[in-house]
Parts: sequence; structure tokens; C-alpha cells
Amino acid sequence: MESGGNLLTELKIREFARDLGSEKPAPGGGSASALAGALASSLVKMVAHLSGEGQDEIISQSLALSDELLDLVNRDTEAFNQVMAAFRLPKGTDEEKRERRQAIQSATRIATEVPLRVVEVSLEVLKLAREMAFHGNKNALSDAGVAGLLGVAACRGASYNVLINLPGLKDEEFVSTTKKRLGVLLSEAADLEEIIGSHVRGALN
Amino acid sequence: MESGGNLLTELKIREFARDLGSEKPAPGGGSASALAGALASSLVKMVAHLSGEGQDEIISQSLALSDELLDLVNRDTEAFNQVMAAFRLPKGTDEEKRERRQAIQSATRIATEVPLRVVEVSLEVLKLAREMAFHGNKNALSDAGVAGLLGVAACRGASYNVLINLPGLKDEEFVSTTKKRLGVLLSEAADLEEIIGSHVRGALN
Repeated sequence: MESGGNLLTELKIREFARDLGSEKPAPGGGSASALAGALASSLVKMVAHLSGEGQDEIISQSLALSDELLDLVNRDTEAFNQVMAAFRLPKGTDEEKRERRQAIQSATRIATEVPLRVVEVSLEVLKLAREMAFHGNKNALSDAGVAGLLGVAACRGASYNVLINLPGLKDEEFVSTTKKRLGVLLSEAADLEEIIGSHVRGALN
Repeated sequence: MESGGNLLTELKIREFARDLGSEKPAPGGGSASALAGALASSLVKMVAHLSGEGQDEIISQSLALSDELLDLVNRDTEAFNQVMAAFRLPKGTDEEKRERRQAIQSATRIATEVPLRVVEVSLEVLKLAREMAFHGNKNALSDAGVAGLLGVAACRGASYNVLINLPGLKDEEFVSTTKKRLGVLLSEAADLEEIIGSHVRGALN
């Protein structure tokens, strides 16, 4: 795991956008999805702050979710780089080939677990966004709505990053369990998207 | 317009997320939507870089769109702050009242035009994302997919910010024209969302 001065989250916004758009394959959509989730959670926190008394629980939950998603921004790119590093391992002898195969399996598994965690955490953000869309300050309704949009984009975007890595895994039970879990999470995210979106559109139009 | 060292896009990712989540109403969902669009365009640019020869046009277009959206991140929060400043103008005399009303109308109009521009530019990003999803490097399909998700979240999120400001405007023709324009843009965005999303899901599942 990276630490110290070269974390993505220590880049300026403009630098992060430039790095994302560079010819290097990482950072890519996985880190961008985690960032969308973190921004969604920050918006939930702002709406909670603007919604008067009794929001302490939502404020502390949304801060924790945002912090975890910012860490996942860094971890997704690190996981991708570990997969690339494993593919570059020597494969001259049978022993090297075996070790390389194991390293690829292990790194690819982490590269699916990290975005799967982004889906899970972003789904929690969506639940808080629904709470704020229905019971938060009406002047900040558009902000709760944007939290819902970015939260569901984070869920789906991270799911793409799980799915693109699954075919590389030989553990069929893990692949099957993960696909099922993803289906459940995405279905819940789609329900929340519809609930939040129709409420916000109805109130704003 | 702000310039110099206090631009939002000069903040580090972690600082921007913290500011977004603070008790201050700006930056809020408008700037977050513009940022989502900028990240989408950066992802398009990365996929174009990874897709071999003949992508120069998409690379230069996506860079220009990303740069404009980053500027719109700053401009949305500045527009919101101008509205707040107009509301704080003195209203002791009739002359002051008149000037304050004019300042509120003028600032609120800009606060609708800026997110409307975010919708327009993010729609252009979506067109490039479709191009990359269908004709870009297959290994970067998830990245093109995330560009589609963030692009449509940017369109819808910015539309919420247009809609929440429109009731404050007295120019009924501008309000009506803007609502119609928004409907056309959002319908096109929804079509692209479906085209890109079903293609990416079909290929990844």
C-alpha cells in the first residue's frame, strides 16, 4: 500500500484530472468511482450541517464514509499497479511461472475486492442521501439530489471495475459469490436512485 | 470571478472533499457536478490515449471539455457566492431596494447559466464516451463506462442546480426557454446513458 506524499488524494483537483487523463492506465475509472462516492458523502454531510439540530449521527457517518472512500481512491490505483507488477514478474523457470501465477491471482483478487468495497460503501452513502433528500433542508435539496446521482454512479462505476477483473480469477466460487453479491447491491442502489431521483425531480420541476 | 490562489481546483482532493462537506453552502452540488463531468472527460482522454493511432481529435476535444468543466467547478461556487452577496445588499431606501432586486436577478441568472453550461459540456463528454465505449481499447471498457456514468451524473446534477435557481427569476421567457432547453439536453443525455450503459454491461457481464 502506498503511503506518504504520493497519494492521489494529496494531488490538487486539477492535477488529479490531468493524471486521470494521461496515457497511463492508472489512475482510472476505479479511483474516479471511489472519488465520486466520496464527493457524494461530503454533500450528504453538508446538507446535514444545513439541516438544523439532530443531524450529528448523519454528520459523523457521512464523514466516516467519505474518509473510507478517499482511502479507496488511493487503494484502487495501488491494486491496479500491483496487478501490473505481478504480470511483469519473471517467468523463466517453472518455479518462477508458478510464483508469477500466484502473484497475479492474489493481486487480481484484491483488485476486485477494493471496488466491491466501493460499491458497498457508496450504497451506505445512498441511504444517507435518501434521508437528506426527504428530511433535510429544502434549500439544499439539489445537493442531496447530486449526492444521490454521484452515489449511484460510484456504485455502478465500481461494479464495472469488479466485473472487468473477475474473468482473470481462477477461484470459481469467489467469482460466483462476488457476481451474486454485486447483483444484490446494484439492485438496491437502483431502487435508491429511483426513490431519491423521483423525489428531487418532483420537488424541483 | 475568482482568480489566483483560492480557486477550488487548486485545492487537494482531500481538502476539496472536506470543504464540500463543511457547514458552508458552497462549494456544493453544482461544483461537484462540474467536477464529475471533468473527471468523465479525463477518463475519455485516457481511453483515447490507450486506443492506438487516430485518436488525436478525441484527445484534444476531451482535454478542452475537461478544462472548461474544471473552470465551471470554480465558476459555479463563485456564482452562488454572488447570489448570497446580492441578498446581503442594503435595503434601507427605495433606491437601495431597487438596486438590490436587480443585483439578485442578475446574480441568480448567472447561477442558472453556469450549471446549464455544465449540462451542455457534459453532454459533449457523453458523446465522446460513447465513441470510446464502442471503438476504444477493450481493456479500458470499464473506464469508458465510468466516463458515461459520471457524464450523465454531471448532466443531471447540474440540471438540479439550474432548476433550484429558476423560481427566483422574474424573466418568464428566460425561465421557459431554459426549462425547454434543459428537457432536450437531459433527454439526449438519458439516451446516451442507455446506449453506453447497456453496451458496457453487456460486454462485462
